[in-house]
Amino acid sequence: MFEREHIEGTGLTADQLLPRVYGSPDLRQIDGVGGATSTTSKAVILEPSADADLDVVYTFAQVGIEEFTVDWGSNCGNCSATAGLYALERGWVQLADDVTYVRTFNTNSGQKVVQRVPTPGGALPAEPSAVIPGTVYPGHEVGLGFVDPGGKTTGKLLPTGSGIDVLTVDGVDYPVSIVDAGAPSVILSPETAGLAGLPHAEWAGAAITEKLSVLDKIRRAGAVAMGMTPTPEAAERAVPKLGIAGPAEDEDADIEVLMLSMGKPHPAMPITGSVAMTMAVLTEGTVPHQAVKPGRTTGKLRFRTPAGIIVTFADDFGGELIVGADRTARTLADATLYIPDAPLEYAA
Amino acid sequence: MFEREHIEGTGLTADQLLPRVYGSPDLRQIDGVGGATSTTSKAVILEPSADADLDVVYTFAQVGIEEFTVDWGSNCGNCSATAGLYALERGWVQLADDVTYVRTFNTNSGQKVVQRVPTPGGALPAEPSAVIPGTVYPGHEVGLGFVDPGGKTTGKLLPTGSGIDVLTVDGVDYPVSIVDAGAPSVILSPETAGLAGLPHAEWAGAAITEKLSVLDKIRRAGAVAMGMTPTPEAAERAVPKLGIAGPAEDEDADIEVLMLSMGKPHPAMPITGSVAMTMAVLTEGTVPHQAVKPGRTTGKLRFRTPAGIIVTFADDFGGELIVGADRTARTLADATLYIPDAPLEYAA
Repeated sequence: MFEREHIEGTGLTADQLLPRVYGSPDLRQIDGVGGATSTTSKAVILEPSADADLDVVYTFAQVGIEEFTVDWGSNCGNCSATAGLYALERGWVQLADDVTYVRTFNTNSGQKVVQRVPTPGGALPAEPSAVIPGTVYPGHEVGLGFVDPGGKTTGKLLPTGSGIDVLTVDGVDYPVSIVDAGAPSVILSPETAGLAGLPHAEWAGAAITEKLSVLDKIRRAGAVAMGMTPTPEAAERAVPKLGIAGPAEDEDADIEVLMLSMGKPHPAMPITGSVAMTMAVLTEGTVPHQAVKPGRTTGKLRFRTPAGIIVTFADDFGGELIVGADRTARTLADATLYIPDAPLEYAA
Repeated sequence: MFEREHIEGTGLTADQLLPRVYGSPDLRQIDGVGGATSTTSKAVILEPSADADLDVVYTFAQVGIEEFTVDWGSNCGNCSATAGLYALERGWVQLADDVTYVRTFNTNSGQKVVQRVPTPGGALPAEPSAVIPGTVYPGHEVGLGFVDPGGKTTGKLLPTGSGIDVLTVDGVDYPVSIVDAGAPSVILSPETAGLAGLPHAEWAGAAITEKLSVLDKIRRAGAVAMGMTPTPEAAERAVPKLGIAGPAEDEDADIEVLMLSMGKPHPAMPITGSVAMTMAVLTEGTVPHQAVKPGRTTGKLRFRTPAGIIVTFADDFGGELIVGADRTARTLADATLYIPDAPLEYAA
């Protein structure tokens, strides 16, 4: 986490500064604080907002590892969950008595994100205690609420105007739901995906491997149907996303899901994909809405993913809809970094 | 780098503390400052020495990644090169006018290491400018001198009493030098290693691959010859080390070398292995001594390794012999770490 005024104080741009302090270009980033994987070579640059409707403005940076580069093209859900806590710890936001909301704005995606942090008695707990699947140490609970997320890419939550569209691939018809929220997504039932009769535990296994090729064709046909690309071939690899949603197998979940990410089963759910799934559950006539039991379409929703249950929420925040999921965050360290000169070949 | 009194101030042992702040146990150490590879999950614990002959006492810790463990079994050469600079930056040692020597002691190996840091005008350069092969950013030059390194494992620099021993493996005789300095090592000529006539650039290529099996047998026979193990099978994988040394091909080097590490060609030279090679060059009758030109056996020695030229030195320091190589080091950051509670299953 870097405060924008600290970067400006160095006289360097973030494009110049971040690779130097992360130890790039180096396969191992051994001469810097980067972690030498795409997950651990990330930065957030943030500042208090002058706008009365916002508390914090933040920008996500993907710092190159073997290249002296910074990529500004997308937001990162997990990194987003640090901006609210940072603002609270720095005193940029007044703490409320039970729960404090921090209104943040991500510049990469143009998305407003309201962050809900428990502050019992008007203070952050001295020792954070929230745990989510896949983490080793507890953190502060951070509810990450995407404000009014429908239609940010195409202009409409249901870009085709319909809860179900039939896409034809290689002469076969596939009924799907096309939803634009968080990320534009194509969602189908386990039957349509060719997983009929399989328990959820086997969705991400061998059965899906032989379906990946046709599922990608369906995904690309969805990109055309929602007007994102003129041809299936022109669709990007990362978006639209593709998800599978079916009825819950037991009382521990409200819905069973599997999402694909870059052509492979995702171990859990990307935050953006979880927003699309939640908005679809809330929208009559879609595949996820048909999959959940009646009465389970508001408030908290429990999605069973390969990694375990992920809970999402849809709430009212001052008259606006916020949709998202809970993450955890904690401050690992406060640090002063020493900036080396640029390597000669990157000095420009 | 951790100061011992700071660790003691936490009320935790280093075995309890280090995995928590490094984010272990986790394949990616994403919830801590560890870098999730063996090279980037290391720590040094140090303190000023009360002994008049020493300035700093330091201990190397290999912090587990997927395990909640700390291994204290060995020293690390590259980490050693940070102890002298840390002491200078913290004011534990008075700066001398041109070069400052920091007398350090490593507790893992029982080895005294004198560290020579350039301090022109009685100060550390504001911007470090030394570069060694394989680094991206410049650091402070640190000469790492192992004090009186001969015989630390077996009691004698030449454990067999001879500069050349003939080891018999599978009925074939191999003349080698057996040297105990830095690490116990078995050193042979390129001809003995089966690399006769090959240029140095090809030593680490396909030619060596088919020799690795017999070279490991020679290494194990050397372990028996120097009394480290009763049988070849009982020899450890890491020690003794095995090196190949031959005459320089041009004026840029004094000697051509290749060292094996854990059964594979090392890209450069481990610091401990470079101490063994240098002591062998200084000792009449050994393979490396025969390989260098007359008059090249004192002061700085230039070893050609696969990664480039590595310069070692053998100097007098207050009547004691110090042998070693130059490294670089710089402070990346000053940080305050926040310590999470132990995960439940590791709380004991």
